Order: sequence, then C-alpha cells, then structure tokens
Amino acid sequence: MLVGMSIDDGFGRITLAQVAEQAGVSISTVSKVLNGRQDVAAPTRRRVERLLETHAYRRTTRAAREAPLIELVFHELDSIWAMELIRGVENVAKVHQASVVLTESGTRHAPDPEWIEGVLQRRPLGVVLVFSALPAEVKQQLRSRAIPFVIIDPAGDPDPDVPSVGSANWSGGVAATRHLIESGHRRIGIITGPEDMLCSLARLDGYRSAMSMAGLESDPALVKYGDFHVEGGYDGAKELLSLPEPPTAVFAGSDLQALGCLEAARVSGVRVPRDLSVVGYDDVSVARWASPALTTVHQPLQQMAEEAVQLLLRLRVEEPVTTRLELATSLVVRKSTAPPRA
Amino acid sequence: MLVGMSIDDGFGRITLAQVAEQAGVSISTVSKVLNGRQDVAAPTRRRVERLLETHAYRRTTRAAREAPLIELVFHELDSIWAMELIRGVENVAKVHQASVVLTESGTRHAPDPEWIEGVLQRRPLGVVLVFSALPAEVKQQLRSRAIPFVIIDPAGDPDPDVPSVGSANWSGGVAATRHLIESGHRRIGIITGPEDMLCSLARLDGYRSAMSMAGLESDPALVKYGDFHVEGGYDGAKELLSLPEPPTAVFAGSDLQALGCLEAARVSGVRVPRDLSVVGYDDVSVARWASPALTTVHQPLQQMAEEAVQLLLRLRVEEPVTTRLELATSLVVRKSTAPPRA
Repeated sequence: MLVGMSIDDGFGRITLAQVAEQAGVSISTVSKVLNGRQDVAAPTRRRVERLLETHAYRRTTRAAREAPLIELVFHELDSIWAMELIRGVENVAKVHQASVVLTESGTRHAPDPEWIEGVLQRRPLGVVLVFSALPAEVKQQLRSRAIPFVIIDPAGDPDPDVPSVGSANWSGGVAATRHLIESGHRRIGIITGPEDMLCSLARLDGYRSAMSMAGLESDPALVKYGDFHVEGGYDGAKELLSLPEPPTAVFAGSDLQALGCLEAARVSGVRVPRDLSVVGYDDVSVARWASPALTTVHQPLQQMAEEAVQLLLRLRVEEPVTTRLELATSLVVRKSTAPPRA
Repeated sequence: MLVGMSIDDGFGRITLAQVAEQAGVSISTVSKVLNGRQDVAAPTRRRVERLLETHAYRRTTRAAREAPLIELVFHELDSIWAMELIRGVENVAKVHQASVVLTESGTRHAPDPEWIEGVLQRRPLGVVLVFSALPAEVKQQLRSRAIPFVIIDPAGDPDPDVPSVGSANWSGGVAATRHLIESGHRRIGIITGPEDMLCSLARLDGYRSAMSMAGLESDPALVKYGDFHVEGGYDGAKELLSLPEPPTAVFAGSDLQALGCLEAARVSGVRVPRDLSVVGYDDVSVARWASPALTTVHQPLQQMAEEAVQLLLRLRVEEPVTTRLELATSLVVRKSTAPPRA
C-alpha cells in the first residue's frame, strides 16, 4: 500500500517509490523525511525534500488554502467519553491548522450509509471513528480515495482490519482490584459492563486475576453485570449490599456505575468509604466532582484521540508500523476508598 | 439588508426584492415561502417557488453537492455546557444535511484572529459562536461575505449588535428561591457566580426579589460569590455552614457549585437534604447523577443551540424579527431539597 500510495493528487502524481528511486534512497528514508525525523543525513534530506517539493508542493499549498478537515464521527454524542475525545482530536488538529468536522451517525457498529457521501465530497485529511467496526463497503470507499481512517475504540473490540487506538482494559481491572486488596479488603464485589462487550470481560478477567494472584477466591455472588450507566451501578450495588454477607468494597466498572453505587449506598445508609469502598473506571470529570471524589482507573481518552489523529496523519504517507495501539491505564486514588472497618 | 441580500451567489444573482417584484407579492411573502410557512396561498407559493427555482435552483444543488457546513466555535470546550450545545447544533444541522465544524479558539470574548480565515475559505451556511461579544472586524468580515452568525450566550451578556440566544437567568433565580421558600425554608443562602458576569447578578437579583416578595429579609452574610465551578461551591458552602446561624438551604448558582456544596456538607457531617437543601442551576447531566440527585433550574442548552442554528438559517433569507432570543428556564425538583427539620 505504501508503494502504491500517491502523495500528490491531480498534479504531477508521483509515488513514494518513485521519489525514493529518483533520490537513490530507500522508501523508509523518504517516509522519515516526510515525518520530519532527525535520523536522516542532511544532504539526503535536502535531496528528498527537493524531489517532494517539485512533485508534491502544489498539493501542500492547495490543501492549506482549502483549510484542511479532519472528520470525527460518533454513534453517540451523549457518551461520557465524547467530550474528552473531541478535545484530543481538536488539540492535534489545531497544531496542523486543520478543522474538525463532527458527526453523530449510525449505531454502535457503523455510521449511516449517507454519511460517507459527505466525507467523499469534503475530502478530509482523514477520518477518526468512535466505533468498533466498519462495514467493508465503507472501508473500500475510503481506501479507494486514499482517505486514511482510524478507529478509537474504548470498548476494546477493534476491527482487526482497521488501525485503532484503545486502552488496556485488563490491566485496568487488575489495578483497581489490587488497590482494594492492598487496602485490606478481602470481600470485593465487581459490577462490570454488559456481558457482550469485550472491555467488560477484560475488566472482569483483570479483577479475577488480581484476586487469584492474591490467593483470594472470587465469589460468583459478588459478580454483577451492568450497563455502564448510573442505573446499572445502582442496581448492582443494591443487590450486593443486600447479600447476607455484603462486600466491603466494589470495583464499579465505570465512573457512571460508581456514581450509581454512591447513590445505592446513600439510600441504604451505608457510608462511603467508611462502610464501603468504591472504585470507578474511566476518570472522566464527574469522577473528580463526585462526593466523595472517586478513586478510579484513568483511561487516557484525550491522549487516545490525539494518538488516533497522529496515526491518521502518518497513514497519509506510510504503511502503519502497528495497526493496534493500546495505551496504558493508571489508578487514581481519591476519597472513595479506604481500609475496611476492623 | 434584506433587500440587498442575494439568494444566489455567482449564478443568475437575484435579490428577494426582485423575486417579490416579478411575482407581484411583498418581500415578506417571498421570505415566508422560503421558510416553508403555511400562511401563503397555494397559487402565490407556486409562483414564488417557480421564480426562486429559475434563479436560485443551481445554488441549492451546488450547496448540496458541496456538503454544507455549519461552524460552531467555543472558547472553551471544557465547559459543562459544551456537550449540550454541540448536540443541539448537530440536531438541526442533521435535518438540513449539513455538517458541523467544531473549533475551540480564543478567549471568553472573541475567537483568535486566524480562525476567521478558515471560515472565509470554507464558506459555511453560517457560524454559531459561544462567546459574549465579537470584535468589530470579525463582524465586518462575516457580514461582507453574507455569512450569517449567531451568538449563544448562556452568560447573558450579549453584544446588542449580534443576534443571540440566551436564557432567563433572573426568572431562574426567582424559581429556585421560591421553591425553597415554599418548602418552608426562611434562612436561605446563595452562592452565585463571579461578580463580573451578568448572569451571576441576574440570578442573585432573582433570589433577592423572591425573598422580598415573600416578606423575607436577605441577610448579606448569606450571599457568597463563586466561580461557577465545584471549588467555588465548596468554599462558599463551607463558609455558610460555619456561620453562627447557618442557612437551612442554599441556592448554589450552578450545578457544579451544587456538587461542591454536597462535598462541603459531606465533610462537615451535614446531611443533604435532611440538614441542608441544595438547589443547582443548569441541569446538565451531572445534576441527575449526583447523590442525592440535584433539584436544579433547567437551562435549555440544547434547545438554545437548536434555536441558534434555526435563527442562522433564517438570517440567510431575511432580516431577523428579533435579535435577542431568551428561552425560559424551569425548576426540576429531585432529591436534594426537602422541608427544613422542625
């Protein structure tokens, strides 16, 4: 794909391979120059740049004149993730003097068919999609027009065929559970997300592994599935709190579910963190604003979006080295967790 | 401006006045037809539509081919209002098959100077700005190119020279305070926003008027100024709760400040709503998710954005009837308010 990709569209079309051949260097050297990498000898860089300029300069200025666009498509703007992802895309777009076109379209699985028409007309620098998968037809349409696309997939179920950015759900589940174990908890509940989402299962597996690594059994009665929303957390926590032997701590699977746990505790007369520790997941702003502020697993949403746009811009000039980027999650300790009461 | 405004740009340029003259009707009738209003006789409508079609049809199809854009500019995407406003703009844009270009730029008062260049190149249907004012130069640049623009101004301090959409801050302050009075509270505190924002002052005046209408004195010790963020609410509530005679209820000025009140109450061992009632303002989603869920004043942010885009599209074809739209606010009673303890 690299060799066939044109870097000038419509004026003096030339491939990276032709530039490489004319400059007497490898394709990877040309691509390094395009990416502004420093590990190319100065004379080589100048030679390549002259060739690129001759054949592709008009493309660059034309794009600049046209106020280049980056497309960002959500299936659900309501998502608590949306704002952080928008910010991340904006950050990188700004640096490249590009504007962001925002679209809400389709279902969890794919944007509406009519969406693609607008994209093909606007000829953006590239497309960032917050979806798990894309229909083969959409991929084909974008590819045939050399419009690169990247999926941001916080749900962790990426299309293997499309470059995507996600985060480390399993490790996040381990970190959350470990924190509770290290605080002294032994009877730890979990409310994970829907049973049909990979990230739910990864977080649950992380919980189970952390328990078993600590030599603790995970009681199936302490495992609940939610909806990643406040209601799911509320219902799960009510069930856990009404058990004959309720847990002293809950890994709530998401920040919204953690808020539901706080409300379930409040109406049950259970104090957080005195009687019940709660750990969220995501670290969106509501986690900071909760009362008490939530201990949670930070999912670097803004950074994921930044990486997605950077990957997009790299894809314009080279074959991706990796098509699946998984960013690290990290625990943020605030006020919703404490050692269990003696 | 109406008479001079062209409805076709570049192909068979014609003004509404010329269409009106040729059709033998008034300009306002032509504009009604353009807006799809039903109060035009069918033969008249057909005559006008034929003329519009002859002279302007190519404009319509050209715009459609070009995937029309609506620009939405924020100075701060972090704002708790941002997501609701984006949704509102998306909703109306979708209906008109337009895409939304999102930009974060500038300060509370105006976008960055370079922003305007991109807009002039993209030639959007119009521009929605979430700012209080615009520099004269920007207004001039947009006007000279017949790009309509509307300000959404939840802060209630609109540029009188620009069409704007806001909401009824004073009435919101009255409604919040009245609800507390009607619940039986007499000693009611307020934490309003910054002293230099009109909406802060309007909400405070609403509080004072509601108190005085009920024959209650407003104790200056119970009036605090915040920052509309969680911290301001926390600090204000801490001060109010440490008074020799603390209030039994607080109108918190914004939902974020209300969350700060909840946290201040929690760390002070004060139960909400048993010991302290709290009313927010805005009704953003965190209000529903709080524990307890917040009684608050609903500011129709999404609807404000929808109205702004609709006003924008009307401005393309007619002189605005009104340049300042103020939408009603309404009280939403949830679980953070109750009668005072006897």
